[in-house]
Parts: sequence; C-alpha cells; structure tokens
Amino acid sequence: MIDQRETICALATPPGTAGLAVVRVSGAEALSICGRLFKGRGALSDAAAHTIHYGWWGDGIDSVTASVFRAPHSYTGEDVVEIGCHGGPFVVDQIIDSLTSAGARVAEAGEFTRRAFLNSKLDLTQVEAVADVIHAQTRAGAQTAARQLAGGFTRRLSELRQTLLTALGYLEVELDFSEEGYEFVSRPAFLETLRQATVDATRLAASAQSAHILRSGFYCAVVGYPNAGKSSLFNALLGRPRAIVSHIAGTTRDYLEESLVEDGYTIHLYDTAGLRSTEDTIELLGIQVTSSLIEQSNLVLVVNDASLGFRHSDALIADIQSRYPTVPIAVVQNKSDLSGTGVLASELGNIAQIPTIALSEQGVSELRAYIAAICRESTAAIHDVLINQRQAHLLRVLIGHLEGASGALAREESPDLIAIDLRSAVRVLGEITGETWNPDLLDTVFSRFCIGK
Amino acid sequence: MIDQRETICALATPPGTAGLAVVRVSGAEALSICGRLFKGRGALSDAAAHTIHYGWWGDGIDSVTASVFRAPHSYTGEDVVEIGCHGGPFVVDQIIDSLTSAGARVAEAGEFTRRAFLNSKLDLTQVEAVADVIHAQTRAGAQTAARQLAGGFTRRLSELRQTLLTALGYLEVELDFSEEGYEFVSRPAFLETLRQATVDATRLAASAQSAHILRSGFYCAVVGYPNAGKSSLFNALLGRPRAIVSHIAGTTRDYLEESLVEDGYTIHLYDTAGLRSTEDTIELLGIQVTSSLIEQSNLVLVVNDASLGFRHSDALIADIQSRYPTVPIAVVQNKSDLSGTGVLASELGNIAQIPTIALSEQGVSELRAYIAAICRESTAAIHDVLINQRQAHLLRVLIGHLEGASGALAREESPDLIAIDLRSAVRVLGEITGETWNPDLLDTVFSRFCIGK
Repeated sequence: MIDQRETICALATPPGTAGLAVVRVSGAEALSICGRLFKGRGALSDAAAHTIHYGWWGDGIDSVTASVFRAPHSYTGEDVVEIGCHGGPFVVDQIIDSLTSAGARVAEAGEFTRRAFLNSKLDLTQVEAVADVIHAQTRAGAQTAARQLAGGFTRRLSELRQTLLTALGYLEVELDFSEEGYEFVSRPAFLETLRQATVDATRLAASAQSAHILRSGFYCAVVGYPNAGKSSLFNALLGRPRAIVSHIAGTTRDYLEESLVEDGYTIHLYDTAGLRSTEDTIELLGIQVTSSLIEQSNLVLVVNDASLGFRHSDALIADIQSRYPTVPIAVVQNKSDLSGTGVLASELGNIAQIPTIALSEQGVSELRAYIAAICRESTAAIHDVLINQRQAHLLRVLIGHLEGASGALAREESPDLIAIDLRSAVRVLGEITGETWNPDLLDTVFSRFCIGK
Repeated sequence: MIDQRETICALATPPGTAGLAVVRVSGAEALSICGRLFKGRGALSDAAAHTIHYGWWGDGIDSVTASVFRAPHSYTGEDVVEIGCHGGPFVVDQIIDSLTSAGARVAEAGEFTRRAFLNSKLDLTQVEAVADVIHAQTRAGAQTAARQLAGGFTRRLSELRQTLLTALGYLEVELDFSEEGYEFVSRPAFLETLRQATVDATRLAASAQSAHILRSGFYCAVVGYPNAGKSSLFNALLGRPRAIVSHIAGTTRDYLEESLVEDGYTIHLYDTAGLRSTEDTIELLGIQVTSSLIEQSNLVLVVNDASLGFRHSDALIADIQSRYPTVPIAVVQNKSDLSGTGVLASELGNIAQIPTIALSEQGVSELRAYIAAICRESTAAIHDVLINQRQAHLLRVLIGHLEGASGALAREESPDLIAIDLRSAVRVLGEITGETWNPDLLDTVFSRFCIGK
C-alpha cells in the first residue's frame, strides 16, 4: 500500500529532448521542499496560488519556472509545484535527484491521478477518460474522451442511481405499510424508467467495440491469393517501401504491421502471407497467422488480381465470409484500370469493390479514404463516452439487475423482492463511477497509467 | 526571412504520450488568439502576468491550464501563453490546428529562442548554452552549460571588450596629440592586460575538445586481435547480449555502437572487427573502419587474451601508439584471474592494465569505473563554459589579433598601427557574444535547434 501522505515527484512530460520539460511535485511538503531548492526573487512558500516564478534550481542546475498551485485547487487536490526546466534528460535527472534528497519520493505509476481521485477531483470514469485522452489512437477518440472527462457520463449514471435510490426509499416505506397495501411508487412510471435505463445501458455496452476502435485505432488486414499484389498495395497505402516485393509467389511469410493516420484515424495495416494450399511449413504457419489476424480485424481487404478476372477470388471471399460472418470485407480489384466502382458493385453483389493499380499508386488515395470512411461509420454512434471493458462488463451486470427488477415489478411481486435487484443495480452504478470503490479496483484502473500521470 | 511580427505556436515538450504536454504561443496576438479559444472563468486578455488559469480549450478539445506571461517578462520577451494539456498526440494536434486556424503560425526550428535573442533576453553564448543544456550527453555537460546560461562567460568577454574599447579611445587621443608624444595608455600595464587575455583565450580555445566530450559523450573503441573477447567485453560493459559471440575468429564484421551511462557520463562504446592480416574482403573493410574509429576515440581499449600471455598484444599496441600518438590507450587483460593491477603496471610500462574475465563479468564494473574516471580527468579543467567549434574558431582569430597588438606595442609602434589589431579583436569578441551579428550567423547557430525551442 503506497503512502498517500508523502510528497511525490515525477517528470510529467514525455521523456526526450525538447525546449521544455515539466517536473511535477505534489503533497503537503511540496512548497517547503521546492522552496529550499528554488532560488527566485521571493520565498516560494509565500507565493500566491496559480502564480509563476522565475529562478534557478538547486546549485545552478538550470534556470526554471516554478508554477504554484495550492490545495484543493490543483490537479491532485494537494499543494502542487510544477517545475518548468529545459527538456534535457540530465537536467531532469538532476532536478528529480535534488527533490528526492530534499524529502520527496518518486511517484508510482498513475499516483498523481490516483490522488486526484481520492481527493474527489475526478471520478472513476473521468480517471479512465484521462488515460483515453492521452492514449487515444484517433482524433475522434481523443475528442470523445475529452467529453467523458467533462463528466457528462457520470452525471447521467448518478442521476439514474439517484432515481433508483429514491424508488428504493419509497419501496421501504411501502414495506412498512404493507398491511394497508399502499403504493408510493407508481408501477407503470417506474417500469418505464427501468426500461429506458435498460435501453441506455444496452446501447452503451454495445458501443464497447466501436469505442475500442476510437481508443486503439482501426485494424485492417490485407489478404488474398499469392501474387495478387498485397505487399505492393501495403507499401502504396503506407507511402514507402516497407515490405519486400517480388514476382515470386510466397515472398511474404511473417506478417508485417505498420500504421498510418488518415483523417484523424490511426489505421493499423497488416500485410499477410498469400493464402493457398501449400506443403511449405513456414508458409503454412504464415497462413495460420493470417486467419487469426482476419478474426481480429475491423476490415478485411481481399486483394484480387483483376487481370485474372474480377471474380478470381470469389472462392476465397466466400470462405472468409462463412468462417468470419461478422467481419466486414472489401475487395480491392488490383491491377485493374477501371475508372469507377459503380459498374462493379452491381455486377459483384453487396461487397464494396475498389479498383487500384498498386504499383503505380492509382486508386490508392481513394482506398485510404474508403478505409477512413468505414472507420467513421463504425464509430458514428459514439458521442460522449468511450466504454471500456471494465465498464462494459459492469453495464451488462447492471442490465441483468434492471431486467430482474422490471420482471418483479411486472409480476407485481412484493416490494422487498423488487428491492433486491434495485440495491444491486445501485451498487454496480457506484462501481462504474467510483462512488463505491476498493483498492483492488483502483489498482486495476491505474495499471494502465505510467509514471508522471 | 521569417516574419518576426507573426504570432507563433509549437509543442514545447517532447513528442510522445505522458500526463502533460505544453504548447507555447508567442507574439503580439498570443493573448487575443488564445483568449478566443480558451474557456475559463475570466477573459485571458485581462489576466495578470505570471498567472495560471483553468479552463477548456476550443470546442471541448481538452481541459487545460493557460499560463500567461506578458512582454517583456517572458522567455521570448513577447506576450506568451503556455497551454498545459494532456500529453496525447491527437490532443496536441487539435490544439495546434485550432491555433493556426485562429491566426497563429507554426514556429520554425529555434524560433522561440531566436526571438529571445533578438529581444535581448539571451546573448549568443546563452543561446548556445540552451542547446547544450538540452542536448548534453553528460551530467557535467548539462551543469557547465547551465553555468554558461547564467551569463558569466559573456560578462568576462564583455569586460575584455570594454577594456580594449577604452584603450582604443585613449590611443585615438594619443594620435591627436602625436606631435607632443603623450602616452595616455600605459604600455607595460596594457601589455600585461593583453598577455592575460591571450592566456585566457588560449585556455578556452584548448578546452573545445574536452567540451565536446561533455556535450556529446565519451567515445571508446574496443579493439584487439581476433578472439581476444572483444564482443564478450562489449556485452559485459553494456550488461546485455548485444553482439553475437562465438569461438570463431572474425565473428564481428560490422562495428556495433551502443551507449551506456556511468557516473553521469554517456559512454559511446564501439565493438570492432578483430585486427589481423587477412585476405577476406569483408573483414578487411571492417579493419579499415576500426582504424578510423580509433582516430576518433577518446579512449581505446585494447583487449588482450591474457591466457596467451600478458604481452601477447604488444605489437598491436605499439602500432596503434605510433599511428595515433595522441589517443589514450588502456589494455584490458581479458581471460585473466589477477586480483590487482599493481604488479602488471610495473611490469608493462606506463599503459593502464585492467584485468577482466568478460564472460563471467569479473572486473567489468571496475573497467566501467575506470572509463568514467578517464572521462572525468579529461574534462576536469572545464568550469563555466562549453566552448563549441564556432567559439573556438573565433577565439583563435582573437588570439591572433591580441598577439598582433602585443607585438606592435612591444615594438613601440605608432598608436594607429596598434589600433588596427585592437579593432579586429573588439569585433571578434562581439561576434562571440552576439553583440555583433548577421542573419547568416544566426542561421548557423539556430540550425542546431528543433521546433518548439
């Protein structure tokens, strides 16, 4: 168990060299420790809240700015000093060494944000939003996480929790007057409230997969028969010669992964081994890996060698569709000199057809735009919260309890039976927002954080 | 020519993900541009200097702090706003996009510091110190650069420049009264001043090589006959199996470069191909490269297979000494189970002898400490300035002029002849500190900077 009373310090900005780095110090002793090390015009301990001071750090370590925040009006809710120094690794090391010598301790991963949570500066969904704002692999993900950070999601859950708590209170009164048969809770209105909450929770839980795209990026596997031009297309999409290209079928064995950013979405692109019947052990292993990549993809691009016919890969497409019915597929008609997709689409059924000539980069920017459009479509339903696995799990538990309570209400069961599921629903809502928490839960949430957050 | 009147913006902290990133905005419009994008309690344009404000950025991009600095009391000497946001790449991108849409321009490399120079916040040796504080590869280098940043070096040069200017003034008066033969400048005292300045400048110019170690780190080549255990030693010094090790002589062909930090010094370690007579073309190429690495090294470690005799590599050592007489050498007596170096040193002349058994890591930490000690010794003379190539060149020009003036004084030549070299010395001193500058000079100095500084 880490000691919350100690004053902690850590580099808050990314490691590396740059004009500026910021070392954050938080805790009851932050001002006195920094005051001993900072040589400015006045004493740091006398500084007003939210002011910035110029001075030298330690024994001539660097010229710095010291930004003073006073409890509770700081990120952590404690006294905080942010030291702005030159962004060189040896400068930062010396400043942190001087702080630990003066009585501060190096912060654990996520400890600043953990203190912000424990001091009620952020609730748990906001804590999770902080991690998402920082790590989001798409612009829309960063934007959604910022909205979640604003706290709207928690307010909605808290309102529902409050509604359920009020109903619980009335149900208990009904229990006291059970002989008289009073109903303080209107059954039809409450049923409607529960139904609406169930719909909301279901919609939110279902958005977890799309949220994963916004958080981690869009996964797109490039597959096809050998020699269809997968590696050429992979290189053309990346805009650089990453994969070795040759006319020999089976050139690519290990899959390659690279990322590009299109329209604010990070697209993780996989070049794979060509799919065919083979006796070659290395190639067979590559083909097995391709199958597992297809399963995890948000979009599978089947590259077809159009010079052998537009329908040359139909058997492969049918095979992928039957084995992975939920994975979206598009066909890249490579080595084709078609100008539009209109004719193709009507000819070839419901699967999108994109013509390209990968070697000369024709159609490649259109293909990039197509992938970004699919990415946008897949995530269009998400507005103000990026549901994560923890929340999705709790939402599914919540739905079970809401449906349990609805059923008991519909069957006109006694108030104490209805109350059982309602109490569980209230507890689960508290776990989502962090109104109810335990150290294990916090450890899980903060395991995604690194030092300095 | 870049426009100094525009308001500029850039990420000031290193790129990457972390708790915090800082975007810096500088220029006459900094407060009004940021004021339109920042949603806090009050208007940013009304904020007092050196104050910090909480708010949201743009259309819900992120929750941020805005630190307000007002001209001339800022890094650049202009109005500055520093936006502290969450350290995620998509957040930073959105903030910079919003700023450029609102009328700011993305800063050129080094433009913040260039403005600081043009607004007389930093002189040129301080500008160079900023780059060294950030990029120093040793703790002592960062510390020395910080002392240079404090401005002591420039003060000393400015004092000398002032002394020379005063003397020049008096010499001109002497010229006016040349008929009368007055001497307003005491010849012996002035000769002493020039002599002292020449000694100082010579010492400073000579420190450029040591300064290079503090700035860029210590270069150490591991050389020796094939199979002496160079790659094993290289791996043991690094603490990880970087180089392929085998019993076959000639395993290492390409040289390997890796760095370690010992006692605050970054040590660049080179593993090289074994030196022997060979007909193998690839091996010969490797051996040529080794020669050029030796030439650039601050220390050459000759690895000797002590199981073949302590003096087995004597011919190789003699060859290196004759070809590179100024490069320091130490002999690593590898595969030896000696406990001390005392006996060896007396037996084997003046070259340091360090016993190791690289495979079992015996003696390796002593060797690391030995390298750091040599590094410390090589740079012990450096105190408050890291002389760079530009400064060393100008100092050598300065020495020429100081000696010219001394000679003319000693030969009791006329004041106008003495004045010629003095005027040149004054100009060169101004070029070092930046009191005299031109755009080309600034372009050279700022070419070392990157965007955001």
